[in-house]
Amino acid sequence: MRQYQIAVVIGSLRRDSFNRKLADSVAKLAPREFSLQQVRIDDLPLYNQDDEENPAESVKRFRNEIRAAHGLLFVTPEYNRSIPGVLKNAIDHGSRPYSRSAWSGKPAGVIGASIGVIGTALAQQHLRSILSCLNVPTLGQPEVYIHVKDGFFDESGNIGADSTQFLQKWMDRYVEWIKKHAA
Amino acid sequence: MRQYQIAVVIGSLRRDSFNRKLADSVAKLAPREFSLQQVRIDDLPLYNQDDEENPAESVKRFRNEIRAAHGLLFVTPEYNRSIPGVLKNAIDHGSRPYSRSAWSGKPAGVIGASIGVIGTALAQQHLRSILSCLNVPTLGQPEVYIHVKDGFFDESGNIGADSTQFLQKWMDRYVEWIKKHAA
Repeated sequence: MRQYQIAVVIGSLRRDSFNRKLADSVAKLAPREFSLQQVRIDDLPLYNQDDEENPAESVKRFRNEIRAAHGLLFVTPEYNRSIPGVLKNAIDHGSRPYSRSAWSGKPAGVIGASIGVIGTALAQQHLRSILSCLNVPTLGQPEVYIHVKDGFFDESGNIGADSTQFLQKWMDRYVEWIKKHAA
Repeated sequence: MRQYQIAVVIGSLRRDSFNRKLADSVAKLAPREFSLQQVRIDDLPLYNQDDEENPAESVKRFRNEIRAAHGLLFVTPEYNRSIPGVLKNAIDHGSRPYSRSAWSGKPAGVIGASIGVIGTALAQQHLRSILSCLNVPTLGQPEVYIHVKDGFFDESGNIGADSTQFLQKWMDRYVEWIKKHAA
């Protein structure tokens, strides 16, 4: 059976990030032939075109991890009605050097969780417009805008039955999408 | 005569950045009572909410520089149809901690230069939607989408007479805007 490696990019660096917990929960819903691996973005330097001839080791590693993946999953909080600078910085690194973007053609999903009622909707819109330019085919429906209320995650970081059912439906469509578009 | 301090935030870190040259050119067009100072963002760490109790010195300095300014000027390239992660990271730092944003109420202008024909138009749209959420009143017209062709900047980084005239008109409106909205 063909195996699919998925690079999971999380937009928050904080240890108890809701989005990391969401990524962990979603990974458990993936079928056996899918392997979801979270990639590090916290050790990437701020992007500077002057460094392009001599990129940091972390930048090389990050680009290689994206290149090796069959698909992508972005799990992002919303900062100031957009994606975190931390996430955009990682996207910028992956897109360079010019004409050698690591992102191009990799199918993706976008989900996010927030304590705000719009559940990262505006961050996801900014991200989708960026991914379009990067030639990343991105799953449209179902959309996942998680409003994190008290008790959404239990003490072990697990989510309840209704949310699990909702996310399982999303996962089923995501898996179809990746299989259809993966190189 | 009242003096106005303007914090200039440049979205590119590269040494020969077109946007830094544009910021330098624009600063020369400001009236005597305006002082445009470029603020550093290259030494800010990647934003992590876990660091909020104990921010880096560079973060404290950056927030203080924004708080001390009467107005803002963003000069940004476009990376992947949005603003650079580097710039968004600085914006995220300035917006925190919650309820103590350094940006709120500071009037701003947004300009940008690019070798692409749309001259940073889509980056500026993303930036304007972010600034709206940050309660930053932002000058609407005239818009400045600079398409940098060969010879736009001469060897000393100066711009030609027509572009100078165009930017002087922008500056006159920008000055009115800052005076009207500055605290």
